[in-house]
Amino acid sequence: MSELRHNPVTRRWVIVAEERALRPQDLIVPEPEATIPAASCPFCPGNERKTPPEIWCWRDNATPPNSPGWTVRVIPNKYPALRVEGELARRGVGLYDRMAGIGAHEVIIESPDHDAETATLPVDHLEKVLRAYQERLRDLMRDQRLKYILIFKNHGATAGASLAHSHTQLIATSVTPSEVSMEFQSCLEYHQVKERCLYCDILAQELEDGSRIVREDAHFVTHTPYASRFPFEMVLMPRRHAHSFAEASPELLRHLAIHLGDVLRRLKRVLRNPPYNFVLHTSPNTGVTPKRSHYWETIQYDYHWHLEILPRVTRIAGFEWGTGFYINPTPPEIAAAHLRDAREAEGTA
Amino acid sequence: MSELRHNPVTRRWVIVAEERALRPQDLIVPEPEATIPAASCPFCPGNERKTPPEIWCWRDNATPPNSPGWTVRVIPNKYPALRVEGELARRGVGLYDRMAGIGAHEVIIESPDHDAETATLPVDHLEKVLRAYQERLRDLMRDQRLKYILIFKNHGATAGASLAHSHTQLIATSVTPSEVSMEFQSCLEYHQVKERCLYCDILAQELEDGSRIVREDAHFVTHTPYASRFPFEMVLMPRRHAHSFAEASPELLRHLAIHLGDVLRRLKRVLRNPPYNFVLHTSPNTGVTPKRSHYWETIQYDYHWHLEILPRVTRIAGFEWGTGFYINPTPPEIAAAHLRDAREAEGTA
Repeated sequence: MSELRHNPVTRRWVIVAEERALRPQDLIVPEPEATIPAASCPFCPGNERKTPPEIWCWRDNATPPNSPGWTVRVIPNKYPALRVEGELARRGVGLYDRMAGIGAHEVIIESPDHDAETATLPVDHLEKVLRAYQERLRDLMRDQRLKYILIFKNHGATAGASLAHSHTQLIATSVTPSEVSMEFQSCLEYHQVKERCLYCDILAQELEDGSRIVREDAHFVTHTPYASRFPFEMVLMPRRHAHSFAEASPELLRHLAIHLGDVLRRLKRVLRNPPYNFVLHTSPNTGVTPKRSHYWETIQYDYHWHLEILPRVTRIAGFEWGTGFYINPTPPEIAAAHLRDAREAEGTA
Repeated sequence: MSELRHNPVTRRWVIVAEERALRPQDLIVPEPEATIPAASCPFCPGNERKTPPEIWCWRDNATPPNSPGWTVRVIPNKYPALRVEGELARRGVGLYDRMAGIGAHEVIIESPDHDAETATLPVDHLEKVLRAYQERLRDLMRDQRLKYILIFKNHGATAGASLAHSHTQLIATSVTPSEVSMEFQSCLEYHQVKERCLYCDILAQELEDGSRIVREDAHFVTHTPYASRFPFEMVLMPRRHAHSFAEASPELLRHLAIHLGDVLRRLKRVLRNPPYNFVLHTSPNTGVTPKRSHYWETIQYDYHWHLEILPRVTRIAGFEWGTGFYINPTPPEIAAAHLRDAREAEGTA
């Protein structure tokens, strides 16, 4: 019998249809071939002039900006959805509301190697990619007009990647996305009642139960959520309560690189390199300077940053778009078992 | 410059990226070939024994149930996500909540013709399809456990249609989908303040403005919403306030068949038969019997039923799934102009 499960954070019900349980081999989506050869790829070394000038770069040597020699490179999106220049210009249009498209839209090129993949980057390299996320996040948080900074990755054309060369996107916006907003509200209300973090409680329950745990180590835990919307959906959380990815220590980022690489390789192994998205959920840019002594006093500290990993292996999205109602054909306990059993793939790019 | 637009009903902000405006020819998604030939299609006449026994049927002649001779046929889904039998069994699982998958999952086969399409069904025929929607809605509303009855269509494999033979799905659930829930809440709060229907006010503003109107006649208006999430997204609303599709008169259903057929053909013409979903949004099954004298007194009468038509022509969905934040590359004013200009395609199947 199928069942309905409720996500206490997003407050969404999901139909988990156990009888129709899809096995990993039923979920594989064929990927279209990459169409741009490395020679003309704007993200490849030697083609730096094809992109806007770089914003941030990791160089282990003394090569000049916008030339080869980099390890990770951050550039503005050539066709940005949002721009930093201008006024917010909030105003009403009859009963509607609008504001100017103020914000930032950047691309983090993860490697000079055209064929590298996030899942198989060496740990040192993935750590530098995560550092780039953090550097850009910290820098943009200084702009008080930017309420939220989204960092997300599209892997594979089906997941929305228009260029095959491995990259992550950053969009900074003057509003907080609705899904993320609901998470903050749930965490705030939960804390008001219980004086505990909702995510910390979820983590404790998942660790005790064990059936949905994919990987745990001293610093991070990845599980398949109880009310997973999609087959093989995963949430990666730091064990220790922390509201913002921007404040993670260099040591924690190194442990994150180890953990994230492993769970992405498990996913790649089980679903044979599926298209996927991952989205970093971190606290909004409220402009409040953290004070240790007031740890729980503002909404942003009730939050617990995490990464959501969303494989794109089912086609049932149109109906879900229209209703916010999801039917998941693979119970998360089955997905977690497959992911736990997956032996490590070869760990090099 | 792109801009952010706010949807007062779903309370979602959308980035409308005017500079990147995609023309219709940039949006065409190639459709994979249908793989099941008519001879073995379970929805074709002569193959009635391949499906569960029919629930409802339109027959213009005296042919027996589950045999050829029907015009529109409603059957239970062979692999239902939800079933009518059993107890709801609501309970907590630690801090999570679950209930049994009680509900209904039905398929409305729109025509005996394997190659018929909703957009090009003759008006008389489409009217019978809409009658089938209404009959099933009315019947299932008698079950007080069912809080919401969703009627939606997937056209094309990309939009989630697993069988090419034209059909609509119905899912009755013991909870109201979150997206629809937010619509009710917005309508209720708006009415509490203004004593007017939010959708009626949107309709009035759209008619006055005109730039987003696709088609209007004496009974229905279709427009592209101000904060459209997707290119060529449309909302079809009755002009006269009405909370429930279940109460629409036979005359209104006939006018709906004329209007809906026309806007679907416009979409087909402009985007060259794109995959799309449509979702009927109607008031929830609160169990309150309508009384004319208390028109505005309960939440359900504040609502205004409508059809959302969602073309599936962009691939930017993964990020949107994770955040509830949308980037729409085609401003709705441009989409509406294309749809208004589209000459009528040939109106027969």
